[in-house]
Amino acid sequence: MPNKTLVLLRHGQSVWNRDNRFTGWTDVGLTDQGHSEAVEAGRELLRAGHQFDVAHTSVLKRAIKTLWIVLEEMDQMWIPVERTWRLNERHYGALQGENKAEMADRVGAEQVHAWRRGFDVRPPVLTRDDARYSGHDRRYQELEKEIPLSESLQDTIARTLPYWENEIAPALSADKTVLVVAHGNTLRALVKYLDKIPDEDIPVIDIPTGVPIVYHLDDELKPVDRSHWFGDACN
Amino acid sequence: MPNKTLVLLRHGQSVWNRDNRFTGWTDVGLTDQGHSEAVEAGRELLRAGHQFDVAHTSVLKRAIKTLWIVLEEMDQMWIPVERTWRLNERHYGALQGENKAEMADRVGAEQVHAWRRGFDVRPPVLTRDDARYSGHDRRYQELEKEIPLSESLQDTIARTLPYWENEIAPALSADKTVLVVAHGNTLRALVKYLDKIPDEDIPVIDIPTGVPIVYHLDDELKPVDRSHWFGDACN
Repeated sequence: MPNKTLVLLRHGQSVWNRDNRFTGWTDVGLTDQGHSEAVEAGRELLRAGHQFDVAHTSVLKRAIKTLWIVLEEMDQMWIPVERTWRLNERHYGALQGENKAEMADRVGAEQVHAWRRGFDVRPPVLTRDDARYSGHDRRYQELEKEIPLSESLQDTIARTLPYWENEIAPALSADKTVLVVAHGNTLRALVKYLDKIPDEDIPVIDIPTGVPIVYHLDDELKPVDRSHWFGDACN
Repeated sequence: MPNKTLVLLRHGQSVWNRDNRFTGWTDVGLTDQGHSEAVEAGRELLRAGHQFDVAHTSVLKRAIKTLWIVLEEMDQMWIPVERTWRLNERHYGALQGENKAEMADRVGAEQVHAWRRGFDVRPPVLTRDDARYSGHDRRYQELEKEIPLSESLQDTIARTLPYWENEIAPALSADKTVLVVAHGNTLRALVKYLDKIPDEDIPVIDIPTGVPIVYHLDDELKPVDRSHWFGDACN
């Protein structure tokens, strides 16, 4: 019997999801729709009877707020919550803030597609004197060299998996029920790892906003079942 | 120059504050007024320019929600938050849920006054087969023997101060700016300790809901100044 439960949840719609902008580490809030998605996710998890022992999230408010809404809906606000930059969205470099359609007009749809869907393609880097450089933000001051200037999906996976190894996996091994509220690309990292999805397939796997993905894992933390099927996105 | 800042904040009005009931460890939410108090506290702290490094709160949602509202108003949702039962409100034993005025009619105003204002007076204990016994609650299952059946203010102080010693004081010593959002009696514990208030005076010190109390501390964590003066309550 699998006794280990992991729930992954992508934050609800953010202001820049709605506005079709590259967001990355930019700290934008939820839209009203994003708020409603979080409420619905919390109700669904409550109906399913999940009792979480710990939650992990990023240091970005669209994920934190989604988590708060879920915990409030479930009346589980008291559980420990760990925040980490390692669960932040992929860093989109100098594209952060740009409108995706305008960028396609400027550099061509193919280039934008490569930035968005290439496994190891990095967008143009942010320079350290750019106002958008994350090193200006107090929350990243202890990171120094680890602060990305731009990340490919591959880079994002590489800095997410140590957090799985050091924090999430040990909690699951101790039979804790774990909730992770994060972002499209850091959840891709976890889904890729758990489901052994090849490099070439993972960029087009769609992680829906506000839909809990429930894994049951065996003692070796291998998935026994998963609530959400990603197959359609690969077809 | 004092470089250490500690802010204490009592949660906004709760449903049972409003209804004049003994609350203790009962996990009741905020009223609309309590919500507004928290918003106002957050705005005040933002105007004053506080930048918190860490926050500590209880495992009760009236404090957690107050903290969340404050962090959202300040756009500091990303800071680490530690929850602990040691910052929970004083456990009110078998009085939890009872209306204070009705209890005064039943047992006399003097008895109620002694329960509320005696330094070392414990209310009647909860029995372990009572539905209100905290040991039935998942969040306290690892505590076992430490779960109180009733607490005097003295008891409450005794279980709060180890958290000061082990968690809050070390953070301040490392020059972190610390926010503590808790309850009337656990904040009394911290104020008593910091301001060396005698046993006989502390029960009548009034900790207002939703009003930040800002301490500046020297390197030995002795208060240099404090924003809020409790003197009137002692007169």
